[in-house]
Amino acid sequence: MAETPYDPQNIFAKILRGEIPSHRVYEDESVVAFMDVMPQGPGHTLVVPKAPSRNLLDADPATLGPLFTVVQKVALAVKKAFGADGATVLQFNEPASGQTVYHLHVHVIPRFEGIALRPHTGNMEKPEVLAENADKIRRALVG
Amino acid sequence: MAETPYDPQNIFAKILRGEIPSHRVYEDESVVAFMDVMPQGPGHTLVVPKAPSRNLLDADPATLGPLFTVVQKVALAVKKAFGADGATVLQFNEPASGQTVYHLHVHVIPRFEGIALRPHTGNMEKPEVLAENADKIRRALVG
Repeated sequence: MAETPYDPQNIFAKILRGEIPSHRVYEDESVVAFMDVMPQGPGHTLVVPKAPSRNLLDADPATLGPLFTVVQKVALAVKKAFGADGATVLQFNEPASGQTVYHLHVHVIPRFEGIALRPHTGNMEKPEVLAENADKIRRALVG
Repeated sequence: MAETPYDPQNIFAKILRGEIPSHRVYEDESVVAFMDVMPQGPGHTLVVPKAPSRNLLDADPATLGPLFTVVQKVALAVKKAFGADGATVLQFNEPASGQTVYHLHVHVIPRFEGIALRPHTGNMEKPEVLAENADKIRRALVG
């Protein structure tokens, strides 16, 4: 089966280029983190490499160390920012896995005892809630 | 809250030390991969750093590049070995996230169109099935 090529018009590529706004919580030379607009829980954050790849399967292995170092920073920050009991890290590859945007991204979701993840409903969170949560995470990242 | 210390008697530490058998598919100087004995789907593999940490939250950041480079290799291998349509990568931190063994590990699960992940039931897979699946993955890793 021929590999599906990377589409530079995917929504995360547009966010990385600043063509679509996002609630960014972190950025360095190779990685950006911003709020998921359809969160499965409060503080659900996406960590995204700037380098283009559809997902983990076609990513340059050299990008993975910097990417997951930021995943770790964000996991610690969301746990602190929301007083969470834990954090779930999810990364989906291809439609069979539930991937919906074809630029590699890692979900980091704060978790609380006895509270299940919300299903991926497609409901948009209010921008003011995302802005407030992003601010909490930014403060936890520097604090 | 005081951090919970790493317990060197956890089951994955025993597997890494060879005190408990496992169906290994990969090993290098810093990472081991072996079959999950309670798979959520055929080919469910765990990728585990040799360095001790409870989970991602207390891991040495230097271990993450080598770890996720192997996660990528294993994701490609299980997709090939089982003719899968995709792969799901899961990493749980603390009980609230569903973590049950307190040595950092990453789940890599082949995915097929229209087939949901099995719940984490606690049912053990037959050893001969795990051995056969491990063999398929080993061949895909070198092929």
